[in-house]
Amino acid sequence: MGSLSEDRRARVILSSVAEPGDRRIGRLLAEHGAVATVELLSSANFDPALHARCAARLASADPEADLGRVDAVGGRFVIPGDLEWPSQLGDLGDAAPWALWIRGAADLRMSALRSVAVVGARAATSYGTHVASSIAADLALSGWAVVSGGAFGIDAAAHHGALAAGGVTVAVLACGVDVAYPPRHDSLFERIAADGVLVSEVPPGAVPHRTRFLIRNRLIAALTRGIVVVEAALRSGALATAHDAARLNRPVLGVPGPVTSAMSTGVHRELRAGALLVTNAAEVIEAVGELGIDLAPEPYESSTPRDRLDLLSRRVLDAVPTKRGLSVDSIARAAGVAPAEATTALALLELGDFVRFGESGWVLRR
Amino acid sequence: MGSLSEDRRARVILSSVAEPGDRRIGRLLAEHGAVATVELLSSANFDPALHARCAARLASADPEADLGRVDAVGGRFVIPGDLEWPSQLGDLGDAAPWALWIRGAADLRMSALRSVAVVGARAATSYGTHVASSIAADLALSGWAVVSGGAFGIDAAAHHGALAAGGVTVAVLACGVDVAYPPRHDSLFERIAADGVLVSEVPPGAVPHRTRFLIRNRLIAALTRGIVVVEAALRSGALATAHDAARLNRPVLGVPGPVTSAMSTGVHRELRAGALLVTNAAEVIEAVGELGIDLAPEPYESSTPRDRLDLLSRRVLDAVPTKRGLSVDSIARAAGVAPAEATTALALLELGDFVRFGESGWVLRR
Repeated sequence: MGSLSEDRRARVILSSVAEPGDRRIGRLLAEHGAVATVELLSSANFDPALHARCAARLASADPEADLGRVDAVGGRFVIPGDLEWPSQLGDLGDAAPWALWIRGAADLRMSALRSVAVVGARAATSYGTHVASSIAADLALSGWAVVSGGAFGIDAAAHHGALAAGGVTVAVLACGVDVAYPPRHDSLFERIAADGVLVSEVPPGAVPHRTRFLIRNRLIAALTRGIVVVEAALRSGALATAHDAARLNRPVLGVPGPVTSAMSTGVHRELRAGALLVTNAAEVIEAVGELGIDLAPEPYESSTPRDRLDLLSRRVLDAVPTKRGLSVDSIARAAGVAPAEATTALALLELGDFVRFGESGWVLRR
Repeated sequence: MGSLSEDRRARVILSSVAEPGDRRIGRLLAEHGAVATVELLSSANFDPALHARCAARLASADPEADLGRVDAVGGRFVIPGDLEWPSQLGDLGDAAPWALWIRGAADLRMSALRSVAVVGARAATSYGTHVASSIAADLALSGWAVVSGGAFGIDAAAHHGALAAGGVTVAVLACGVDVAYPPRHDSLFERIAADGVLVSEVPPGAVPHRTRFLIRNRLIAALTRGIVVVEAALRSGALATAHDAARLNRPVLGVPGPVTSAMSTGVHRELRAGALLVTNAAEVIEAVGELGIDLAPEPYESSTPRDRLDLLSRRVLDAVPTKRGLSVDSIARAAGVAPAEATTALALLELGDFVRFGESGWVLRR
């Protein structure tokens, strides 16, 4: 760690003494740089309230120990200007992270370039987890990284879907990248580290608070090209993330569900408020991808031979019986067309194998 | 029938000799009136093609018999200018009906004034029929008439829902008002006639064709203030009706469903193309009702006492343990706030019964 720059060291300290997303500290950082910001926080005179808030953590800050911990799990500490830094985080302005703790085989910057957030309820239904994992798998198969929050329910289904398809998935955590929270996601996080990336703003060992989850959400929004909400009750962290995305001008997409399901109520409210309804990965990619390049195919509509008939022929065809044959005049009358028109139409319909002239007159061909 | 006006008699003839929606005949009617139009159709010289098309039916037209038939089932024949004529049918221009055959206890004009079309797939799922009947029932309870096409599936569920709620429902048929098509809807149509209205453009005894169903759809659209599509596959007559409604500037609303259901695919496509997503009758009424009068309540969001805390108090609360108590300094440090801030926040949280000071320090109150 001899070559550790002063700026990098100061950012390690900042990540352990200040809560992520603090705009006051973001402004100090932008104005004075990381080293001076740490000095200002350490001074009891510059801003006594701010100092009081950080003093205890500053006294026990141990940047070398934090770096050693991330090193021990094969992780890394990344700051603005590093090759792996996702420059779109600058869209967060004063609330941008001052550094990221990263663990995993994939490169965060490269993964995030073509990435979509797939988020939703923890208490998801089987419908929701099915749809989340299948959309995530299809996104992965199309070369898109799937970003989510590592929580139960939709988040986990999205990560699993991307991994199952051999794709890259990014879990943005509210705890340290060496902490399994929720603990039952231990093996999921190991799989993500093996093929994707775990990311956090807080140092190794840090535990998640409720407010950290909310503040973490802005990173999910900022890293990605758009966000898909799969299931969300009216009170849902996923909707908070969607609002973060909307503030950052990222498209907000929603997957509908039964109107009888409370887990779709929040999504339906967003769709009524202007979010885009999507039903599959192709529609997601069309919405977040390059204009004119990533177009979703139209839902497949099979056309029948009958569709290719003109209105008059269709009318005549409607009037032809299935069993006892009818004369041209009877058919013309039933169809409301002239006998001569019926004669022409029937001849064409016979050529097309729609009708045949049987013993008692014209009948449908089966 | 001695007082039967010439105009009325000519319109009975027109309804039996020309197919509904024929714009050429609609223009003749607008320009020359009904009596002259029948004369022009009868002339072999005026428009030979048109004459050929109508000649056979004209020869056998029997307006008195048709009127007798509708009389026999307690029905009536209504033309523009009659009290029961729904004037909004004029929005159809040249394609407006020249007359309507009506059967039922309710008044068509009054019913249609505050009416919504609820339509959808014949091969509906149990989800779709459940939602259609419950939306129709709630519309009926709010004083709205439910208009539909009398078909299996969503249509039937909509009619049944409105009837079950003691409301008025209107079935717009492609056959005569004395014909039960589909035959299994015999008793449904009897119930509709008892409490609502059966309407048709074609005379009693007339059988439906496929093209008549499509042409009938424009009436469903024109009669109502807006249309709700509950379930529809990609190829669905309900979507044709929705497009008719859009052309008439009636709002098109759609009820979402699982993206895994083929019966919702057509609805989702309409929603992606700009139709409004609705999840209940209140949202339907808001969309089709009077501006500012018929407002849907916001989906109910319960707020918790925690929601009313400021960010700092919430941070402090997050840092308070459930079991072994912690000191103010430990909590301040975990929360990233100054010890003095934590002291104030803890005092307020204690007043609010969120926390208590136990033997070993501050703990959460359960």
